[in-house]
Amino acid sequence: MTPFEELTEKQKRIQSLESISSLLGWDEQTLLPEDSADQRQDQNATMASIIHEAKTDLQIGAILDQMEKEPRDEKTYPILRDARIEFDRATKLPASWVEKHARLCSEAYHAWAAARKNNDFPSYAPYLQRHLDLALEASDLLGWSEKPYDLQIDFYDPGVDSATIDNLFSELKTELVPVLDQILGSSVQARTDIFKGFSVDKQKAFLEDVTSSLGFNYKRGRIDISLHPFCSGNGADTRMTTRFHEDNPLDSLFSSIHETGHGLYEQGLPLHSLHNALGKAAGMGAHESQSRLWENQVSRSRAFWEHYEPKFREAFPSQLDGISSDELYLAINSVSRNPIRVDSDEVTYNLHIIIRFEIEKRLFAGELKIEELPDFWNAQYKELLGIEPRNDAEGVLQDVHWSGGSFGYFPSYCLGNMLAAQLWYTALDQLPNLQDDFSRGDFSRLLTWLRENVHKHGARYHLLELSKQATGQALSPKSLIRYLQDRYLPLYQK
Amino acid sequence: MTPFEELTEKQKRIQSLESISSLLGWDEQTLLPEDSADQRQDQNATMASIIHEAKTDLQIGAILDQMEKEPRDEKTYPILRDARIEFDRATKLPASWVEKHARLCSEAYHAWAAARKNNDFPSYAPYLQRHLDLALEASDLLGWSEKPYDLQIDFYDPGVDSATIDNLFSELKTELVPVLDQILGSSVQARTDIFKGFSVDKQKAFLEDVTSSLGFNYKRGRIDISLHPFCSGNGADTRMTTRFHEDNPLDSLFSSIHETGHGLYEQGLPLHSLHNALGKAAGMGAHESQSRLWENQVSRSRAFWEHYEPKFREAFPSQLDGISSDELYLAINSVSRNPIRVDSDEVTYNLHIIIRFEIEKRLFAGELKIEELPDFWNAQYKELLGIEPRNDAEGVLQDVHWSGGSFGYFPSYCLGNMLAAQLWYTALDQLPNLQDDFSRGDFSRLLTWLRENVHKHGARYHLLELSKQATGQALSPKSLIRYLQDRYLPLYQK
Repeated sequence: MTPFEELTEKQKRIQSLESISSLLGWDEQTLLPEDSADQRQDQNATMASIIHEAKTDLQIGAILDQMEKEPRDEKTYPILRDARIEFDRATKLPASWVEKHARLCSEAYHAWAAARKNNDFPSYAPYLQRHLDLALEASDLLGWSEKPYDLQIDFYDPGVDSATIDNLFSELKTELVPVLDQILGSSVQARTDIFKGFSVDKQKAFLEDVTSSLGFNYKRGRIDISLHPFCSGNGADTRMTTRFHEDNPLDSLFSSIHETGHGLYEQGLPLHSLHNALGKAAGMGAHESQSRLWENQVSRSRAFWEHYEPKFREAFPSQLDGISSDELYLAINSVSRNPIRVDSDEVTYNLHIIIRFEIEKRLFAGELKIEELPDFWNAQYKELLGIEPRNDAEGVLQDVHWSGGSFGYFPSYCLGNMLAAQLWYTALDQLPNLQDDFSRGDFSRLLTWLRENVHKHGARYHLLELSKQATGQALSPKSLIRYLQDRYLPLYQK
Repeated sequence: MTPFEELTEKQKRIQSLESISSLLGWDEQTLLPEDSADQRQDQNATMASIIHEAKTDLQIGAILDQMEKEPRDEKTYPILRDARIEFDRATKLPASWVEKHARLCSEAYHAWAAARKNNDFPSYAPYLQRHLDLALEASDLLGWSEKPYDLQIDFYDPGVDSATIDNLFSELKTELVPVLDQILGSSVQARTDIFKGFSVDKQKAFLEDVTSSLGFNYKRGRIDISLHPFCSGNGADTRMTTRFHEDNPLDSLFSSIHETGHGLYEQGLPLHSLHNALGKAAGMGAHESQSRLWENQVSRSRAFWEHYEPKFREAFPSQLDGISSDELYLAINSVSRNPIRVDSDEVTYNLHIIIRFEIEKRLFAGELKIEELPDFWNAQYKELLGIEPRNDAEGVLQDVHWSGGSFGYFPSYCLGNMLAAQLWYTALDQLPNLQDDFSRGDFSRLLTWLRENVHKHGARYHLLELSKQATGQALSPKSLIRYLQDRYLPLYQK
């Protein structure tokens, strides 16, 4: 076998193990009997240890050393680049760090859940501090000591650093706040409490119709129910989830479309390369660009609802009786000040993210102490969103991420929004009358374009380079601002 | 760590891996998207290789060598005994045999499915021959060369050999054939085609009610839908399946109760010992005794239906309108000549098994050639059941087992029937007025008795010893004959 073939064999084994681990995680959140969690924890730990063993196989290091000496080959370059990152990260973090981190994740999760329930940030603060300390230690171990926060960002979006995000977010903030003020100053008010009694079975049938039409391949995927919607698995077997509320059909519909965006990306990655960079997603920002594009730019559009409103009314005639088309469309595109990120609309969402980035940046620079978090959080919400959380449970304690030591993850949501808007205008430019397709329920031209310009590259290009390759432009907030103005100002002009 | 602690650690890892593998198998048969089988095959192969590696860990052999030198300790004896069997079987079969066997299983399965579809035994015969050759080779490798068939039986029911089964089955056959003639000579005829339009949702609700009442713990288990019903997982997370036909509610009900019997056994095994013999089932015969006892002795009884008939009628008032109690009870206990084992009743079922045993015994002794199978099969069916299969698809090609190289498995079904009847009369003897409990929908005394006399022992005693421990009697067909006479002769006496 050539060194490359040897590497491929090892990568295929790692991929196979990770896909098994992912199925265990999916099952845990969808089907696992309530008292069977003990065995699942044990199974998860078994898989984690086998995967760690496979990733730290010293032969991988030897193969990479050998291949890196040879002249750069464009085809294998991204594969070697990402294999090197993964191998170094797996081997440079000692088992003691990995164990401490795993244990802390479990403890901090329970501490977070209790703290949120009891509105008691101080009881959670020590866990956050330990997570921060471990993250700083990882930066040292991985040789990222100058700007430790940058390592965290790099985990999710390789090549992106905090200085880059700083520039993007400050431009976004400057432009976005006046747009938001204009929207919220309007006399137009969306009503989202007008939907009652939408049966779950019919919601499910409707959203399966929609997500199939968008292009999700149910022969290689499923949609099931979980507490929080997610998309897991890979293109060989893509498992999405949603949740249903009889009085909030738009929640499950749009969360399903969001997950469908993730699923379409996975299903568009080259199936024969799932084990290496050519068949993996380019990063979290790129992934989020796909979910947001399908959820927001496509499915909250007039054109989309020209096709789906009659079908929606056919499925729920009595429930939608008395709700006008304008009321429906406005509810789909409602904007409001909401202290909770996951309940917020696509305009204010970005401000929620900017606040979290500002906090993480300061934490890692030592400019903000853990115990100062609630005050800083509340002040930022007042300044940027004009609201004050009533308590820490709906403030600094609302997100699970930090309890898992996931710092540097939040920015990717907003980077994804930027890329989504940029892809949107590029596609509109290159595909004449694209939205006419939507009003006929045809999304194939857009999907083909995304397959060609984003999906098929896998992680060959990471986020910033992908933006240039797919849109001809560096990543910037300009398209996002333009899109939000185009979509929302006409709606809220009075 | 003591040698025993070391062994325990290794066994826990093997158990964890096997439980993961089992979940992959369950998911494959219940939920896997139709085009995702390729990835699942790859995942299965990955797990198989990791499990093989774990089972052939030479340290296990060293630990066993060391512990076997020490004086016998009653507590650890069954653990060491079964660990030795497993280690020897894993290490004595070379990788080349394992690979050949795995490949043949896959090829033979497809050949079998095609042959059954096309009613073409000759196309399948070469695969059967190769399976037989491999099985004989395994007997040589594992040092079982004198009576190679005995090894196959030992895989499923340790300690049982073909001579033992020969004795049991010939007594059973002699006693059973006249009973069957009496039943089939009766003018009483059950009708099973009187059930129409039983909605799946209501069937599911009804059977969940029944199986919960029997004692299945749905907080540590589930029931889902698959093509063929099965029970997988373990007591920590027991996954049963069933299937639904609107015009055959008794099929899904009794198949669910059958799987519940398996599930109750798993859920009754000591949870802290799932990794060793003290927490594993005693063998296939013992497992089948539990499924048959709950399905037949308990749930086809008058007492059971005294409680459930009103509930069944409440769930399906119009569908059962015009069907009398006697007709219902007779349909539940219908006996007929059916060429298909899985569709047959509990009286004739045993003859289906005896025929398969006679064939396997002769194949392994070299007294019957593969190409002679169809003729031998048909002659046996004519002699014992008085029917001639119309073709090989409903004859020798009906079962999947041999395509997976599973010889020696069939007898365990009938051994299970014998033990079930023996347990039944022992329980009736020891638990006064037990069936009065059933007519009140209370099955807890029986379950507690089975927990105490069968489940809690795990595999401490294998089948033959378990029979003595739990019933005070060696395994024998006498109770089974008595039970079939008691249950069926009064029903079919005219």
